[in-house]
Amino acid sequence: MLAGYLNARCADFLRSLRLYGESGSDTAAAAEAASALRCSARRIGGTLHTFRVLLDPVWADQLRTELGWLSGTLAQEYACTARLHRLVSALGRLSGSGPVPGPPGSGPVPTASNGEGSAAGAGALTVGASRAGALLERQLTLARTRSHSAALQALGSSRFHAVADAVAVLASEVPLAPVAGAPAAEILTAPRTAAERRLLDAVSALPLARAAHPYNAEALVYGLATPSDGETQDAPWHQVRLLLRLHRYAQEVRQGSGSPDPVLAEAGRALDRHRDAAEAAAAAANAARTPRIAPATAYALGVLHADQRLEVEAARYEFQRIWQRTAVTAP
Amino acid sequence: MLAGYLNARCADFLRSLRLYGESGSDTAAAAEAASALRCSARRIGGTLHTFRVLLDPVWADQLRTELGWLSGTLAQEYACTARLHRLVSALGRLSGSGPVPGPPGSGPVPTASNGEGSAAGAGALTVGASRAGALLERQLTLARTRSHSAALQALGSSRFHAVADAVAVLASEVPLAPVAGAPAAEILTAPRTAAERRLLDAVSALPLARAAHPYNAEALVYGLATPSDGETQDAPWHQVRLLLRLHRYAQEVRQGSGSPDPVLAEAGRALDRHRDAAEAAAAAANAARTPRIAPATAYALGVLHADQRLEVEAARYEFQRIWQRTAVTAP
Repeated sequence: MLAGYLNARCADFLRSLRLYGESGSDTAAAAEAASALRCSARRIGGTLHTFRVLLDPVWADQLRTELGWLSGTLAQEYACTARLHRLVSALGRLSGSGPVPGPPGSGPVPTASNGEGSAAGAGALTVGASRAGALLERQLTLARTRSHSAALQALGSSRFHAVADAVAVLASEVPLAPVAGAPAAEILTAPRTAAERRLLDAVSALPLARAAHPYNAEALVYGLATPSDGETQDAPWHQVRLLLRLHRYAQEVRQGSGSPDPVLAEAGRALDRHRDAAEAAAAAANAARTPRIAPATAYALGVLHADQRLEVEAARYEFQRIWQRTAVTAP
Repeated sequence: MLAGYLNARCADFLRSLRLYGESGSDTAAAAEAASALRCSARRIGGTLHTFRVLLDPVWADQLRTELGWLSGTLAQEYACTARLHRLVSALGRLSGSGPVPGPPGSGPVPTASNGEGSAAGAGALTVGASRAGALLERQLTLARTRSHSAALQALGSSRFHAVADAVAVLASEVPLAPVAGAPAAEILTAPRTAAERRLLDAVSALPLARAAHPYNAEALVYGLATPSDGETQDAPWHQVRLLLRLHRYAQEVRQGSGSPDPVLAEAGRALDRHRDAAEAAAAAANAARTPRIAPATAYALGVLHADQRLEVEAARYEFQRIWQRTAVTAP
């Protein structure tokens, strides 16, 4: 069962790699192939981690590290693009010129403006918003270009070829550790239960009761302190995001990749938004440290930072709501 | 019944005025007396407004205008003090050095910091927070001093003495309009019902369904646009705040001032917070327009503005939650 799952994910990996190579100048196809490549790399790595005891552990740890390096390197470029898009659309919304995303189930959003809002904005602060947008675009486009070069360099490296070779072997042959001949379902249960236990422990350490109170203003605490203070607060949530992913992959091994648990997938998406908003908030704070920017630009970046921290808090609220519906309970 | 209520409020007014005159250099006693003076001025004015048809209308309108001028003038000084306190404590919270106000019923707030947060903040942005605090203190202290002078000047004016004389007359003698001899309860019902109807109409025009979705990001729309755009959005809520107050005063006429409806009082406090946060957010945005401020100061003011707009949104959420429990339904 485990070998079959790993074989299938390695086949996905190799197919995505071929598609990426064939994509040439078609950036949309390249992005899609790179995304699929990262997706299978994460699944292979996660499975090697969770079911480590059933495999050759030294080999599993080493390949997992290499797959982590690969997916991390490939992720950067697309993360920069997504972050820029998130920040620029938030600036549009904050200036009253963009659409307001409605909360789930709220239906069409009534427009607060009487038609004069978006056109009238010739004030200094709207100038600030457009300057802030230009600054972020410059900084994040530069970061993306660097990430793109780093990704190309990685894909041409001997280190990458070694990973691809290892995955090619794994696509047909899984080095299982010798285990006593129990039924597959039983052997797989212990690592999967351990993964679930790590997830539950991490979730129970989250301040969920606090997150359940809307507008608790938790995510903006340290909004003006040094960045590392805010990051301390986010870390347990990021950790749950990773453990939830491992748990989902472990479930896939049992179920095949066909039927993901919709509630867990939704909880994962809430934590993805949490991570994206936290990183976007950090990018806005970082841009505000650029020397010699105008006060209006800095002001707009401050509003933008707080707005994204608010989305961090909203994602936590959303996660705890979804988590109440999840089937994952203490075993 | 109406005359009795007005007599009693006018007696409150005159007693507060005497206490204010006797307070001398005791600023706490002066503040308390001024607050009581405004409180009775608002009640007298509100009652004259609601029960206008039962009174001499020309006289009622004129006295109401004068009482509005008086309570507005007296309110400014204390509003500046409260606004400064609100903004400075928000800056403390945002810098991780102040206490985080817990949401209602959340119990003690867990500290997110591991003891290093508040001490470590020697970064540029914490400098920004303290500079922003100093700028706001300068601006709002100046505004308060001006308001204090204006209040003193008003209390010494012949315009004020005319108001005080009118209230002194009203303390013993109410110029009721001639009405057909129906029972008092019935005569008072029509104006009270009309006041309730105006409140209900205004509440039903509020975007309560949207406010019921936490983190709808509504209050930050136009967060970077010109200030007047944001104020357009707040106006209906401010209007409901005033109508709710008139409704409460009209209820007092029936019940005596003894037993206020606790739910309506709570709803009123939520709208007071809405107004206070909206004005604090405007003060932060306004301070950011000061020429030649440092980018770090402007950034901190941006975060602060967004934080207060978030409190605006939180107050709307709170109001709609309280409103669901209110006994006020369509008559």
